[in-house]
Amino acid sequence: MVHAVIMAGGIGSRFWPLSRRANPKQFLNVFGEATLLQNTVARLHGVVDPGNCRVVTNERYVDQTRAQLPSVPPANVFGEPISRNTAPCIAYAAFALEALDPDATMVVLPADHVISDVRRFQQVLRVAIERAEENGALVTIGISPTHPATGYGYVQYDGPPELDFDNPTAYPVLAFAEKPDLATAERFLDSGDFLWNSGMFVWKARTIIDALEHFLPDTYEAFAPLQDAFGTPRESEAVLEAFQASRSISIDYGVMERADKVYVVPGSFGWSDVGDWKAVYDLSEKDRHGNAIRGQTILRGSGRCLVHSDDRLVVLVGMHDAIVVDTGDAVLVCHRENAQDVKQVVDYLYAHQLERFV
Amino acid sequence: MVHAVIMAGGIGSRFWPLSRRANPKQFLNVFGEATLLQNTVARLHGVVDPGNCRVVTNERYVDQTRAQLPSVPPANVFGEPISRNTAPCIAYAAFALEALDPDATMVVLPADHVISDVRRFQQVLRVAIERAEENGALVTIGISPTHPATGYGYVQYDGPPELDFDNPTAYPVLAFAEKPDLATAERFLDSGDFLWNSGMFVWKARTIIDALEHFLPDTYEAFAPLQDAFGTPRESEAVLEAFQASRSISIDYGVMERADKVYVVPGSFGWSDVGDWKAVYDLSEKDRHGNAIRGQTILRGSGRCLVHSDDRLVVLVGMHDAIVVDTGDAVLVCHRENAQDVKQVVDYLYAHQLERFV
Repeated sequence: MVHAVIMAGGIGSRFWPLSRRANPKQFLNVFGEATLLQNTVARLHGVVDPGNCRVVTNERYVDQTRAQLPSVPPANVFGEPISRNTAPCIAYAAFALEALDPDATMVVLPADHVISDVRRFQQVLRVAIERAEENGALVTIGISPTHPATGYGYVQYDGPPELDFDNPTAYPVLAFAEKPDLATAERFLDSGDFLWNSGMFVWKARTIIDALEHFLPDTYEAFAPLQDAFGTPRESEAVLEAFQASRSISIDYGVMERADKVYVVPGSFGWSDVGDWKAVYDLSEKDRHGNAIRGQTILRGSGRCLVHSDDRLVVLVGMHDAIVVDTGDAVLVCHRENAQDVKQVVDYLYAHQLERFV
Repeated sequence: MVHAVIMAGGIGSRFWPLSRRANPKQFLNVFGEATLLQNTVARLHGVVDPGNCRVVTNERYVDQTRAQLPSVPPANVFGEPISRNTAPCIAYAAFALEALDPDATMVVLPADHVISDVRRFQQVLRVAIERAEENGALVTIGISPTHPATGYGYVQYDGPPELDFDNPTAYPVLAFAEKPDLATAERFLDSGDFLWNSGMFVWKARTIIDALEHFLPDTYEAFAPLQDAFGTPRESEAVLEAFQASRSISIDYGVMERADKVYVVPGSFGWSDVGDWKAVYDLSEKDRHGNAIRGQTILRGSGRCLVHSDDRLVVLVGMHDAIVVDTGDAVLVCHRENAQDVKQVVDYLYAHQLERFV
């Protein structure tokens, strides 16, 4: 059976002051009614039932996750006692799924992405599931790059340079590449056989467990004892011990870059990882002056601005390319091209005894 | 005896969102500990006693004015029942002073100006007082212009093009000019004999009453009955009737532009009428990045900004030449060169049932 594992443990500090420790990115509705997490479940409709969705999040967000996803059984929301990047998170979920369903196929999805063309996304996902179920492959979903982004990892595939996105196909992966500098990113785009690494994966639970045993034996050893603990009174203690015994490592670096039989299904479905406020601006509906507005605002002689106000009046006069985010106790005014630096503001708040704003 | 009449009736909507109907410009401490009104009284120290200062303000600000000026006797704060520009305000004060002191000399000062060189200002004021007491002259204080401003009226004087500001002198006025366009303002500066009209005047109470009778007989007629009403139970009713009977007209247009024996004392004492937030920026102390900061703020990669926060955290990232003013219920983000347009925001608030923000 096909199960989804949604990774929802991030804190998304680049969305400060809206994202806080108490309310990270995946729980925000920066575009409309639904949150990024809710949309992640909703867009699986017809491929994976909500009853077969699991969400792995930090312990402190378990209640909030359950509240946002009434269609997902509460027991399907797992809390990580410690955040340790994607490999331990995936190991935890894989052992849990395999204990329930030894033939489980596992779709792994980050909880904080935006996808505008759900139909095409589902086509890609079905091809990836088919490939993963065929012969124990590790399958990743690649995004046809639209520009030489330096914020994403890349995947090189063995296939034709011209892709037919209406008929998605799985291709063997030649190489993974970490986030490149601009010159390297431009070379990747010129070469025509590189895709963005979306962080979405499909495999059998058994396949990834075997791969962990082979490529990340310490992670495997840490989580293997869970097999006998699930459903027993000592489950939560065993989970804590497993995470404590794990080092922080990504599944890309720990497994995908080293494994054989790795495939990628390239897609083009309006994907974004919404990494900062600039991405929110790019993805938002705008008025004829290019302004994306949320909340009570007055704009005069202003253009290409993003304004997000929780409940106060925000007035812009003669401003261009600005991001203004107003919340109860703090307001951010940021040039659109500096949206990445917001993360450093959060670091600054931590370093200067201003945690109450984080 | 020399008396001061401080005109404090304005609402200063260009300082929104800090200035409100309930808290206009003259009551704000945009630069430091003291408010503009308090500084207006303080800088008369040694020339006019606080006990000889009168303040004319709108009725609704009488209590606030008295609270801000504990050294001024409460009875010296006059409330205007209706705002009718400067001529009725001055007529009211002149009749009131003359009733107390038939030989009164009257220094008329707006409550919302900034003057950095108080010593030089007092020198100018003393010369103006001397001239006004000599032979019934109407004396205005002119400011040596530093740039072709279009926001001020101008005064043309009959004197040498090079002035000695350490030895101020009264010169006959040749002409008054309304706020010019830029080309005209540049011509004024080139001609070398134009000064900015500061709106500060000195005259005997008797002199201005005679001038009102001659040049603005309707204003004179409206206020003359007050002479018999001061100190009687019907004083406040008489004041209301006088203002109701008056049209709105400035003393410049109504009297100064038409009178003979008008003199100007040119000065250069770091004067500004602080017309908008840009002026506040220009007059504020700045850090090495050119930022003028008030309240809890974090600035990263930002320069030449003015930030004023009452009590929330304001963070600027990658911003330049911006004005950010944060108050309890509203925040303004304005390009520094558009500071004049803030007034239009207030007009908009009135026009769109948003008076609660005014």
